[in-house]
Amino acid sequence: MEYEVLKVSSKSVPTSVAGAIANVIQKQGSVELQAVGAGATNQAVKSVAIARTYLSETGMDLICTPEFFNVTIDDEDRSAIKLIVEVRK
Amino acid sequence: MEYEVLKVSSKSVPTSVAGAIANVIQKQGSVELQAVGAGATNQAVKSVAIARTYLSETGMDLICTPEFFNVTIDDEDRSAIKLIVEVRK
Repeated sequence: MEYEVLKVSSKSVPTSVAGAIANVIQKQGSVELQAVGAGATNQAVKSVAIARTYLSETGMDLICTPEFFNVTIDDEDRSAIKLIVEVRK
Repeated sequence: MEYEVLKVSSKSVPTSVAGAIANVIQKQGSVELQAVGAGATNQAVKSVAIARTYLSETGMDLICTPEFFNVTIDDEDRSAIKLIVEVRK
């Protein structure tokens, strides 16, 4: 399955990312967050926690599934985390 | 609902935490991870990603839901993340 991708960095603002998550979820039902590094992963998780509170008002219960993936940055292979975010069926 | 709690720190070894997650999930169906700080949250997310691969072999599809909670450490209020981990129904 193909998901719309939101890239999250350690400098991303969680409330803004949460707004973007809520927007894509309401249109498409799922979204993929990509984070490289501990700071980025932390912001991604906070963003999902905030998006959960936004969408709980509409009766949606967001869940996420973390997976590893590999990215190449400046010719260096790095392990990164993707979080697939979707609505609990 | 009450969950068994696993506290994760920035020094936790993700493969070990993943083993503990898989163990509790197989007994009780759900577990709560608690992480204070970006490094701890990162280790918690990695642990869930690894536990997903462990349990996928048994046909279980792990999901998680992040939430904020407050903890007091050395008389200081800190925001922390809990990840409720459970099997997709």
